[in-house]
Amino acid sequence: MTETPKPPAAAVLDALKNVSTATLTTQLFKRGFRNTFLTGLAPVNAEAAHFAAPAYTLRYIPAREDVAVPDVWADHEYPQRKAIESAPEGCALVIDSMGDVRSGSVGDILIKRLQVRGVAALITDGALRDTPAIHAMNYPAFCAGAAAPASVATLYAADLQVPIACAGVAIFPGDIMVGDAEGVVVVPRRLADEVARDAGEQERFERFVHERIEQGHSTFGTYPPNDETLAAYETWSEKE
Amino acid sequence: MTETPKPPAAAVLDALKNVSTATLTTQLFKRGFRNTFLTGLAPVNAEAAHFAAPAYTLRYIPAREDVAVPDVWADHEYPQRKAIESAPEGCALVIDSMGDVRSGSVGDILIKRLQVRGVAALITDGALRDTPAIHAMNYPAFCAGAAAPASVATLYAADLQVPIACAGVAIFPGDIMVGDAEGVVVVPRRLADEVARDAGEQERFERFVHERIEQGHSTFGTYPPNDETLAAYETWSEKE
Amino acid sequence: MTETPKPPAAAVLDALKNVSTATLTTQLFKRGFRNTFLTGLAPVNAEAAHFAAPAYTLRYIPAREDVAVPDVWADHEYPQRKAIESAPEGCALVIDSMGDVRSGSVGDILIKRLQVRGVAALITDGALRDTPAIHAMNYPAFCAGAAAPASVATLYAADLQVPIACAGVAIFPGDIMVGDAEGVVVVPRRLADEVARDAGEQERFERFVHERIEQGHSTFGTYPPNDETLAAYETWSEKE
Amino acid sequence: MTETPKPPAAAVLDALKNVSTATLTTQLFKRGFRNTFLTGLAPVNAEAAHFAAPAYTLRYIPAREDVAVPDVWADHEYPQRKAIESAPEGCALVIDSMGDVRSGSVGDILIKRLQVRGVAALITDGALRDTPAIHAMNYPAFCAGAAAPASVATLYAADLQVPIACAGVAIFPGDIMVGDAEGVVVVPRRLADEVARDAGEQERFERFVHERIEQGHSTFGTYPPNDETLAAYETWSEKE
Amino acid sequence: MTETPKPPAAAVLDALKNVSTATLTTQLFKRGFRNTFLTGLAPVNAEAAHFAAPAYTLRYIPAREDVAVPDVWADHEYPQRKAIESAPEGCALVIDSMGDVRSGSVGDILIKRLQVRGVAALITDGALRDTPAIHAMNYPAFCAGAAAPASVATLYAADLQVPIACAGVAIFPGDIMVGDAEGVVVVPRRLADEVARDAGEQERFERFVHERIEQGHSTFGTYPPNDETLAAYETWSEKE
Amino acid sequence: MTETPKPPAAAVLDALKNVSTATLTTQLFKRGFRNTFLTGLAPVNAEAAHFAAPAYTLRYIPAREDVAVPDVWADHEYPQRKAIESAPEGCALVIDSMGDVRSGSVGDILIKRLQVRGVAALITDGALRDTPAIHAMNYPAFCAGAAAPASVATLYAADLQVPIACAGVAIFPGDIMVGDAEGVVVVPRRLADEVARDAGEQERFERFVHERIEQGHSTFGTYPPNDETLAAYETWSEKE
Repeated sequence: MTETPKPPAAAVLDALKNVSTATLTTQLFKRGFRNTFLTGLAPVNAEAAHFAAPAYTLRYIPAREDVAVPDVWADHEYPQRKAIESAPEGCALVIDSMGDVRSGSVGDILIKRLQVRGVAALITDGALRDTPAIHAMNYPAFCAGAAAPASVATLYAADLQVPIACAGVAIFPGDIMVGDAEGVVVVPRRLADEVARDAGEQERFERFVHERIEQGHSTFGTYPPNDETLAAYETWSEKE
Repeated sequence: MTETPKPPAAAVLDALKNVSTATLTTQLFKRGFRNTFLTGLAPVNAEAAHFAAPAYTLRYIPAREDVAVPDVWADHEYPQRKAIESAPEGCALVIDSMGDVRSGSVGDILIKRLQVRGVAALITDGALRDTPAIHAMNYPAFCAGAAAPASVATLYAADLQVPIACAGVAIFPGDIMVGDAEGVVVVPRRLADEVARDAGEQERFERFVHERIEQGHSTFGTYPPNDETLAAYETWSEKE
Repeated sequence: MTETPKPPAAAVLDALKNVSTATLTTQLFKRGFRNTFLTGLAPVNAEAAHFAAPAYTLRYIPAREDVAVPDVWADHEYPQRKAIESAPEGCALVIDSMGDVRSGSVGDILIKRLQVRGVAALITDGALRDTPAIHAMNYPAFCAGAAAPASVATLYAADLQVPIACAGVAIFPGDIMVGDAEGVVVVPRRLADEVARDAGEQERFERFVHERIEQGHSTFGTYPPNDETLAAYETWSEKE
Repeated sequence: MTETPKPPAAAVLDALKNVSTATLTTQLFKRGFRNTFLTGLAPVNAEAAHFAAPAYTLRYIPAREDVAVPDVWADHEYPQRKAIESAPEGCALVIDSMGDVRSGSVGDILIKRLQVRGVAALITDGALRDTPAIHAMNYPAFCAGAAAPASVATLYAADLQVPIACAGVAIFPGDIMVGDAEGVVVVPRRLADEVARDAGEQERFERFVHERIEQGHSTFGTYPPNDETLAAYETWSEKE
Repeated sequence: MTETPKPPAAAVLDALKNVSTATLTTQLFKRGFRNTFLTGLAPVNAEAAHFAAPAYTLRYIPAREDVAVPDVWADHEYPQRKAIESAPEGCALVIDSMGDVRSGSVGDILIKRLQVRGVAALITDGALRDTPAIHAMNYPAFCAGAAAPASVATLYAADLQVPIACAGVAIFPGDIMVGDAEGVVVVPRRLADEVARDAGEQERFERFVHERIEQGHSTFGTYPPNDETLAAYETWSEKE
Repeated sequence: MTETPKPPAAAVLDALKNVSTATLTTQLFKRGFRNTFLTGLAPVNAEAAHFAAPAYTLRYIPAREDVAVPDVWADHEYPQRKAIESAPEGCALVIDSMGDVRSGSVGDILIKRLQVRGVAALITDGALRDTPAIHAMNYPAFCAGAAAPASVATLYAADLQVPIACAGVAIFPGDIMVGDAEGVVVVPRRLADEVARDAGEQERFERFVHERIEQGHSTFGTYPPNDETLAAYETWSEKE
């Protein structure tokens, strides 16, 4: 396993947090990446969806009756429990639940602990339990559904900090996860700086495009822009 | 390809817009149609779901790496972009995305242009991107999910104004699409007038039934009605 | 078919209604039950989700063109219609729709009648129709989706009060259904009393745990508790 | 529950057994039935697929840990075991397994007993276990897959001789099941006689069509036939 | 719609027919194409699977009760029937059935006509009907399943010779379809010549690799080859 | 990660190889395990399906464009390639492909190398490529489908010898995999000895039951046996 890379500068994370996941997927598409959005995940609370943070990963396999038992909860080395206490402040805990939505990957008590410890977000491609309580926490938590049963009903934690699949997308520890009300995108670690920079510029241009469309301009020539539109953008930029 | 039929009279569209999709499927079922509701689609904003409009269709196929590239966005003949500028005022743009929810069929800028141009609604059996911004537009937009990536990540536009599949239902150009907070139904063009008429009468009767049920009447004899109920309805109708 | 068992005491139903479905699945897991949560169902109105009631069951099979016709609606022995008038006050009507979300298992008029008659809740693993109107009723109604078409479009009612599958879970008539904003769990009838008792105690302890976590305690030693935490809990309990 | 209807005459069953399931679905389609083929089922042994027999039905629900235990196997009233000894000679045992292919609906010993008792066929929309041994039996057994675990691993038998769903199709006790190497179709009981008669005539005409097509005729005018083709068919019929 | 391109030279088609679909996907992957294999399709008869031919496309949408009726079979302009008589000799008829396996895209009589007319292959991402008879024809026919009902039960033919989706892959008219016992791959038309050339060389090298592996060489250094292996290959090539 | 356990004695593996997977799932069910069969996998060649061997595991995640490139094939530390050369003689290579059947987990050259090296079997819950060539090898290879593309088209190898999911079942390195024409079952390592012993006795008894059933005995009293049947079995056992 390769070393987990150093997180990007705070300013980069800040810039990523302030653009939309739609903008980020466009930047990644331009760099050859077609599969970076975690399809089908939604924030438990859409008002608390914005975050950008390096991935700390947890991996589940299917439960087996002899090992997936409540006793594991007392084992400080059991990866699910260890994740809650070892995920670094500022990271996003990302869980590979194999898309299993029959049980909750974690519940409100563990998420509360993540929140207290300063972990920035929780993402699973399975379900969460205690979702009404999680909704009230104003915490960025993303999942594929709500399910009351504890994880051991169908899942067993196998690993921490290994490359995982989450909602059909590859996540390597240290990759940058970014969320908004639309969902979650992963930005490969080595691209974080340049994507953050270009995403900001893209959103600035698209604000201008929105104005032009509202003024009644055709999308032809505006989006993507022709020379005339680019000149108008230059003027607009100077004024802004 | 047969000619696209003329739209119904404005009064017919108005009547269709003012009944529920549930009522319309009942009228269509009585005429032998079991499969007219676009299963699994929801409005981005339930407050902005009511519309009735003739279908203008766009068809996607899967993306292929040599043709599904950002350059197509500048091609005014590319069907996705052409659709935005050529869909007639008052129609509903209906998109066959083959149920692919991994990318957004369209995003907020193109939908804003549709809104400015007076296109009545946007329906896709795929996902939409920029859904938080679309939610804020108060525009009838229906989809099967939210996905940040641009359409070219997984889709390529192939055709305009051909018969399509949308959410498992056949849509012919000119068929009447009707939406409410429950979803979208298609009314075959040639049935629009009679369905509009009978749907209004059905809803009037069901308002009476609701009153009776609230008063404590059994559903037996009330829904469907026996002679006594029909007589009471006649009296009720006169008073109303 | 075995007799439907007597409902539990009102105090037991009350206790079950006042705990979360998450708590109940934990109690059931401890007794060897891994599959008691009805995965994928959600309340139409999350504000009106809490209930606990014995199951009264209705079973659908696929529609066949010669029998699934509007005429059945006038047949008082047709199980769907009979269910509405025969489900006892205080029970929950639970419908096996085989997960078919293409049509509504029932609609607003029938649910209004259930509400008037004092039936406590309506649960289907299919869709409901007229969901905007149902939302306005403040009634515990759970489903896997919204679909405008009447049930006969794809479903035919075959049976009342037999063991059914609902969302992948076995439901026997008389089992106790419990709902909250997260979804619905089934408590096997013979376990209702002991589960109600232990669930209350579990929630009391978890309120204490929440306080500890908010105070900054590690989950290690707190959840599950070590001797020190248990002692603190004893003190806390005495004060409360 | 309505009475199970009397089986058709042996000659009718014989006629049905000697036409293809494709022919039968065409006859049923002409009578308004679009959904009579059990999609996705295949014979364990394609050489032993032909049969026609009235349906005797068994219905499963999901297993629950307290009742789905090996002890049920000794209970002569447990519907799965009762089915094996009570299904009448000459019938087809049709099982609603809710499409669950994780365990075998039945295995080789029970199917051997059905074969010894003269039961004509076994159909499940779940899996079968011991499929290598069943293949060797030359018995018409149809399923959606092979799975080693016994049924109790995921299924619990709930009912005998009730209307069921099998592979998405409604089956009423006494309906006529017909199989060939392509799969299984259900013929509603009251249509058996007329469908048997017309299916024979259809196949006779299609043998003629095959000859014509092999001779190089266009499908236009041949299939469906124009007057010239019908005249040629008359001549052909006389010779045959 | 762009013009359908000219077919490649017979020698190119011959070369493509004589390599495996596995080899072709590798050649296409090296040129940037990740999605060219029609996942989930199998030949009805594995002994009759090899072919290479330009695509002639047919597109279905869902059936609607007023248009999907047996009468369409007599309409020479109905795209399904027109396809059978207009698909050019030497092409492959490729059908977009939207993955619907509930009815047969075509049956034995129409496929017999294709065979008589010299059409090289038939591919659908739906089902075929009369599969036992088709198996006996020794004709390259690929499908996702077997289903007895005629296409009109669930499908309606909408178009000929337009870009389609087939098993999740984009197919443009004139693209080269190649089949073997593993399944079907599409080679974009403009790449046919170079892929045919390089695929032959790849298979030649892999024959050498197979020999080396059978002799006990490690895959390390052999596959992919290091300099020593390449030298050995050169020697081997001279001898062959 | 815990140490991989020592393999069982050769006699135990032999005993396991000589019973059916159906028998083994029954033995495991009796010990509380409901989920040990790898649903949906089939041998490429049913004549070469029998094996019993300890699991050596390989884990895939989804491909990402920057790392899933042909260059990895030359990297001797890339887990897919390392697995082929490091899986011990006599083990079974078990691959977690996340159920992705769009590309082949491995192809004929790598499987040939496994066969030469004495690896006992290859199991994936994805697809295999070059299946016609693999069929000819008479090697126990199990998969969920056939797909021509190389794994890098959709998969990236992440790990060796960690606990994995395969076809919905937990597999720990060293667990005993057993295959036959029905599919593959996993026997937890610590149960191998006792399961091997009891499975042999179970099959002996079931041979007797088969004889009884063929003689016309009812399943009641025979399977499961009553005292009379047990006495007859004792006599039968002495004679055998």
